[in-house]
Amino acid sequence: MDMVVTRDRRGRTDRPALGASLLERYHSVRSASLQVASPLSAEDQCVQSMPEASPTKWHLAHTTWFFEALVLQPQMAGYRCFDARYSHLFNSYYEALGPRHARALRGLLTRPAQHEVLSYRRYVDDAVEALIRSGAADARVEALVELGLNHEQQHQELMLTDIKHAFYLNPLKPAYRPGGACGIDQPAPMRWTAHEGGIREIGHDGESFSFDNERPRHRVLLPPFQLASRAVTCGEYLEFMHDGGYRRPELWLSDGWAAVQSEGWLAPLYWEADDDGLRSVFTLQGLRPLDPAEPVCHLSFYEACAYASWAHARLPTEFEWETAAAAWLPPVEGPVWQWTRSSYDPYPGFQPSSGPIGEYNGKFMVGQLVLRGGSWATPPGHARITYRNFFAPGARWQFSGLRLARDV
Amino acid sequence: MDMVVTRDRRGRTDRPALGASLLERYHSVRSASLQVASPLSAEDQCVQSMPEASPTKWHLAHTTWFFEALVLQPQMAGYRCFDARYSHLFNSYYEALGPRHARALRGLLTRPAQHEVLSYRRYVDDAVEALIRSGAADARVEALVELGLNHEQQHQELMLTDIKHAFYLNPLKPAYRPGGACGIDQPAPMRWTAHEGGIREIGHDGESFSFDNERPRHRVLLPPFQLASRAVTCGEYLEFMHDGGYRRPELWLSDGWAAVQSEGWLAPLYWEADDDGLRSVFTLQGLRPLDPAEPVCHLSFYEACAYASWAHARLPTEFEWETAAAAWLPPVEGPVWQWTRSSYDPYPGFQPSSGPIGEYNGKFMVGQLVLRGGSWATPPGHARITYRNFFAPGARWQFSGLRLARDV
Amino acid sequence: MDMVVTRDRRGRTDRPALGASLLERYHSVRSASLQVASPLSAEDQCVQSMPEASPTKWHLAHTTWFFEALVLQPQMAGYRCFDARYSHLFNSYYEALGPRHARALRGLLTRPAQHEVLSYRRYVDDAVEALIRSGAADARVEALVELGLNHEQQHQELMLTDIKHAFYLNPLKPAYRPGGACGIDQPAPMRWTAHEGGIREIGHDGESFSFDNERPRHRVLLPPFQLASRAVTCGEYLEFMHDGGYRRPELWLSDGWAAVQSEGWLAPLYWEADDDGLRSVFTLQGLRPLDPAEPVCHLSFYEACAYASWAHARLPTEFEWETAAAAWLPPVEGPVWQWTRSSYDPYPGFQPSSGPIGEYNGKFMVGQLVLRGGSWATPPGHARITYRNFFAPGARWQFSGLRLARDV
Amino acid sequence: MDMVVTRDRRGRTDRPALGASLLERYHSVRSASLQVASPLSAEDQCVQSMPEASPTKWHLAHTTWFFEALVLQPQMAGYRCFDARYSHLFNSYYEALGPRHARALRGLLTRPAQHEVLSYRRYVDDAVEALIRSGAADARVEALVELGLNHEQQHQELMLTDIKHAFYLNPLKPAYRPGGACGIDQPAPMRWTAHEGGIREIGHDGESFSFDNERPRHRVLLPPFQLASRAVTCGEYLEFMHDGGYRRPELWLSDGWAAVQSEGWLAPLYWEADDDGLRSVFTLQGLRPLDPAEPVCHLSFYEACAYASWAHARLPTEFEWETAAAAWLPPVEGPVWQWTRSSYDPYPGFQPSSGPIGEYNGKFMVGQLVLRGGSWATPPGHARITYRNFFAPGARWQFSGLRLARDV
Repeated sequence: MDMVVTRDRRGRTDRPALGASLLERYHSVRSASLQVASPLSAEDQCVQSMPEASPTKWHLAHTTWFFEALVLQPQMAGYRCFDARYSHLFNSYYEALGPRHARALRGLLTRPAQHEVLSYRRYVDDAVEALIRSGAADARVEALVELGLNHEQQHQELMLTDIKHAFYLNPLKPAYRPGGACGIDQPAPMRWTAHEGGIREIGHDGESFSFDNERPRHRVLLPPFQLASRAVTCGEYLEFMHDGGYRRPELWLSDGWAAVQSEGWLAPLYWEADDDGLRSVFTLQGLRPLDPAEPVCHLSFYEACAYASWAHARLPTEFEWETAAAAWLPPVEGPVWQWTRSSYDPYPGFQPSSGPIGEYNGKFMVGQLVLRGGSWATPPGHARITYRNFFAPGARWQFSGLRLARDV
Repeated sequence: MDMVVTRDRRGRTDRPALGASLLERYHSVRSASLQVASPLSAEDQCVQSMPEASPTKWHLAHTTWFFEALVLQPQMAGYRCFDARYSHLFNSYYEALGPRHARALRGLLTRPAQHEVLSYRRYVDDAVEALIRSGAADARVEALVELGLNHEQQHQELMLTDIKHAFYLNPLKPAYRPGGACGIDQPAPMRWTAHEGGIREIGHDGESFSFDNERPRHRVLLPPFQLASRAVTCGEYLEFMHDGGYRRPELWLSDGWAAVQSEGWLAPLYWEADDDGLRSVFTLQGLRPLDPAEPVCHLSFYEACAYASWAHARLPTEFEWETAAAAWLPPVEGPVWQWTRSSYDPYPGFQPSSGPIGEYNGKFMVGQLVLRGGSWATPPGHARITYRNFFAPGARWQFSGLRLARDV
Repeated sequence: MDMVVTRDRRGRTDRPALGASLLERYHSVRSASLQVASPLSAEDQCVQSMPEASPTKWHLAHTTWFFEALVLQPQMAGYRCFDARYSHLFNSYYEALGPRHARALRGLLTRPAQHEVLSYRRYVDDAVEALIRSGAADARVEALVELGLNHEQQHQELMLTDIKHAFYLNPLKPAYRPGGACGIDQPAPMRWTAHEGGIREIGHDGESFSFDNERPRHRVLLPPFQLASRAVTCGEYLEFMHDGGYRRPELWLSDGWAAVQSEGWLAPLYWEADDDGLRSVFTLQGLRPLDPAEPVCHLSFYEACAYASWAHARLPTEFEWETAAAAWLPPVEGPVWQWTRSSYDPYPGFQPSSGPIGEYNGKFMVGQLVLRGGSWATPPGHARITYRNFFAPGARWQFSGLRLARDV
Repeated sequence: MDMVVTRDRRGRTDRPALGASLLERYHSVRSASLQVASPLSAEDQCVQSMPEASPTKWHLAHTTWFFEALVLQPQMAGYRCFDARYSHLFNSYYEALGPRHARALRGLLTRPAQHEVLSYRRYVDDAVEALIRSGAADARVEALVELGLNHEQQHQELMLTDIKHAFYLNPLKPAYRPGGACGIDQPAPMRWTAHEGGIREIGHDGESFSFDNERPRHRVLLPPFQLASRAVTCGEYLEFMHDGGYRRPELWLSDGWAAVQSEGWLAPLYWEADDDGLRSVFTLQGLRPLDPAEPVCHLSFYEACAYASWAHARLPTEFEWETAAAAWLPPVEGPVWQWTRSSYDPYPGFQPSSGPIGEYNGKFMVGQLVLRGGSWATPPGHARITYRNFFAPGARWQFSGLRLARDV
């Protein structure tokens, strides 16, 4: 794992457990983004290593633009934009909010400078805080601020996945943050836990925050199944590799096997083979010896499926996962996101939110797979057992692993 | 539509309704392939217009190789291959059966000549018929022959979709077969039929033939829904176009909108705008005036979704579709395949067939969407209400349209 | 070499040595094209293996269109086109003559059928012959017919290079024409012939036919140089390979080394290494053992330069080549075209021909290198010592080899 | 033009006109690079806008590595590298000096930080200066230092062309340096100057510095020609545009016309059309109104040729240019580089320098065209009348324009 976070949370769906007001929460989440960026130089914050990744600075500005475009401009009388040109630069994919700088060219934005983006953040923070303090923020505005904070938390994790990718492509293999050994001695033994199936409730309900893609709560009929008690470890994954996992097409989905060939995959992303045959892994603390006890991470969906096939098991559906999680809170938030065998399809009765935020989730509901759980990099309190993360099946730069399931 | 086929079948799952023996059925299906190829010259049969399409001659040889590799070689003592090199040329994607000629280069196979492929067909037909007549064919062999015949029927439809695509790219716009007007005067009025939902059985069961992806039969819990009484027509689709359908990103999935931009889509595939503003459509009978009464065809999943969104409706899930079809036989086999809102995922408890034929379906279960029904080009008796066709969401060269659904 | 042609010609610039009339010459050249196509089936004649190559049928039609568009339409009163749509299909690159079917899609033209193209040829032949016989053809028309015949001869060679490439990509490795061994026992010993340099006349002059790129004849100042007495052989090239030729960047131009890496070049095009280490070479007679005595062929300019560098020599400039050739006729027409170290630039005072035929040569004068000589596949009488062939530096599917030069 | 530089130099080939010692010259040239970088932030210095361009920081480090790898390591006893990993990062293309970081990924090098690169420069400067001061530097070392300084001057110009390209792609269109109007009121009238041709000496000779590609000095035979008295202006180029220059294929080389189509060229690089039809041009001072009196700049070779064709003229050969320049010093160093009609081929008798610096020029002698003169951004004293700059014919981001020539 990239970082060891001590945490005793339980992934509860009721977020502000400490009774924090929205203002405190706003301050806390916004500060956390700066904290994530703090080990990085202005140069580091400007780099984009591939079209799917974004510069740190862009993340910092985009999450700020989100509040400006979706809260301040529509809801705060007399608000003046910090810079009218920023909407073009920092709109990610909201067609309803106008044209955008090309995604693949975000790394060219040496201007605005990093310090200007920090000024932008302060300017918008002042305005949002003033809006909240003014008492003019009704429930709808509060919901938008809450959405903005959850959005920002998603980007906090992306800042880490994206800078990790950029640093990995630098031959100097810089460390994001110095750090020591991982500290996991022995993985817990893996056990199968049985679930009887039947009609289950899936998805989020009630007043507390969720994304629209977790709704509506609805009933599904599950067959009996078994779920592993923990994620697959690097040591287990090494057995798959030593057994020819990357050379045996019969274990792979067709698109997965094509990716193995065209991309030359021989191991998870960030694994390196030393001359003496030992393996090391690139982490946010730099290159480290591979620890077989750690959960395997940076797998594509294809690799997760091939491993499961090799292990005479399968991936769980997202419904199985959620059903199990409702019983056992532990899987939420870490240590790695878990690929499921569920395509990212809309729930029955799904309606995107109205207005521009309707583009947040719904328009991506094709060609992606659902991941459940959370990673060590997911901000505490962000995920839920109903939380649906999603990526394309070939994506490997997220903190993505797997947990096995099987039929009874 | 490309062709008007008079047919009064009802899509029953029990195939050999006329009591045809396997031998008669073998002869009948194999002859039908030659019938499909018969209007085409040797040159026509050799061309490949894109990597996803194959030459007619290749289809004729590949379906023959399927019997040779999966029936004759493993099951018929003393069988000698027609030409040992053909396995390399005509294996489509069976990793277990050795390396293959690259898919995108099938159009380079001017040799073997078309007449040699016909000799290959006769040689294999003689052997398969001898095997069946010998009485040495047990139930497993019969099942493989039946699979081979269903496989061949799938390629009969592909021969038509593929040559249509190749002819369309020829500036001479040749006709596959001469033909007259379409003959549909007025579409039936569209009605919504309500379904109460509940626990339903989905998938194929019993002794009669099905593909492995239709199994196992299992129960799903459906919400109440409504399904349209017929497919969307060209006239209805024109309204969507006239209302800016291809210019309004809010109607589209993100990947769909990207395809509209990058591919320059302005209409379904094969539609052309004349100088005087009238529209014509390329068919297997050549260019014809667009008939608003016909079902709209050659849509991608993206376009089908965008249309449904514009119509304040949605696509049905494959489970809704199958549930409705079990009540109303009409939708099976035509006139157009219908995109569903279901990703092509495995059914609970799905197990691919053992041996090489396990590669037939299971390894494609990611990144594709399910189509249900059948088209005018689907061979009579081939489809079933449990039949799962599947293509990538951007595919437009199949006979693919849509039927609307909505929540209650 | 692909074929052994017995020939005692000397590459004279005065073409109709036998006193042949234009009519006889027209008939003879046009027939020769059909002769080249005669071993090929209709399927073979339709295939296109890469954008740079064209189908045989397309060559047959394009050379016919050339007479129709440049001779008959402008010069023959009352001429009616065979099919008005053919100009779109068979115009190669003449912007002045209207839009064209995309070059890379020529292989999709299964229609017109091969027999229709033969009818087109007969129709145009009848008209051209009638025009010549009518006496209405003045010197300008005769010059255009002569250009058309030289153009057709160029395509006769291209028909062979293009079908060879297509057959090579067919795993069956078909032979264009059966044939036996090559029959060269021992290459002549290689000698250096010295030339004193000085002011020399370069380029074509006078009344006999030449392409515009060979004109005007002009004077150049040459340093003294030496030229090899024959082309480099396969045996010599094998020494380069055995000495690490394809692994030593210091021997290569930068673009050449990049091509070695990206294309995976390990040997000339069409060379294959058998399991037992012996080498064979694909020819128009199929796969044959490599003959070390043959001139090496199917080299790119990059490979020719790298070989020369390894041999402590260089390629001749086209001016050196022509100067030497004016003394020694042997190098003209075979056995292989010889890359020179001259970029294909215009001669001083160059003027493209007026009208559409001005596009024949001039617009390609950038990014290409000059080859001199001719190959066994060049029609007898076609080449001259002033003849400038040209291809991009990475092209390998032509019959291209090299002859060494060096400074004194 | 991007910048107005007052200068009265005459492009003499004897560089150190002021009697500057090598040490002074070293200091002066190295300082000038920092001067070029000084308006740029660390973020700006890290960005790479396309594979052909490099980050400022990379230029600063690469030019330093050049001294380290080619002077200090081979020539200075006991020299220890600043960082052994830098050779991998900052070697541009010297195969003899080991493997290299991929060119297209130079923009990912956020580390080493800009301040570390400055430390690297100081470290190497101290060592080079110590080496020179020590008296241990013989003529060969001095020649290598001189080469390194000329190399650094080339990169000073590239730093400007590269950052201009990156800033142009930033929607904020930042200015490298504030600045006012251009200040050219009226272009001088254009006159043709006649040259009688004959045998002329071309190339560099003698002791003073030149690149190896300028040697050996040799004789060429030139026909009579005329050369324009100045470069083509923006106003003249606008006439070409207004006369359909970018829509008339007959004016273009074939590859040029293909580039016009595929790249959508409508004007020189950096020209923009305002809504009111006025034109502005992006410069290092930001967007400015187009000045018709300025020399046209940022043309590809293709555009230069098309313009010349439209003007019933042609580009000069590099030999014509040099012959004229030997008479008239003005064309050297500015205001824009001038495309010639000469491919970048080796001079007769050309020998690359021995050792790694043999890769400096020779291996690029294919596929490029020669530019002569110099631009306002060429460091004073850097260019010569024998100087051969070269770029691919489609390159537009250099300060490249044209001067017309014509036959007599």
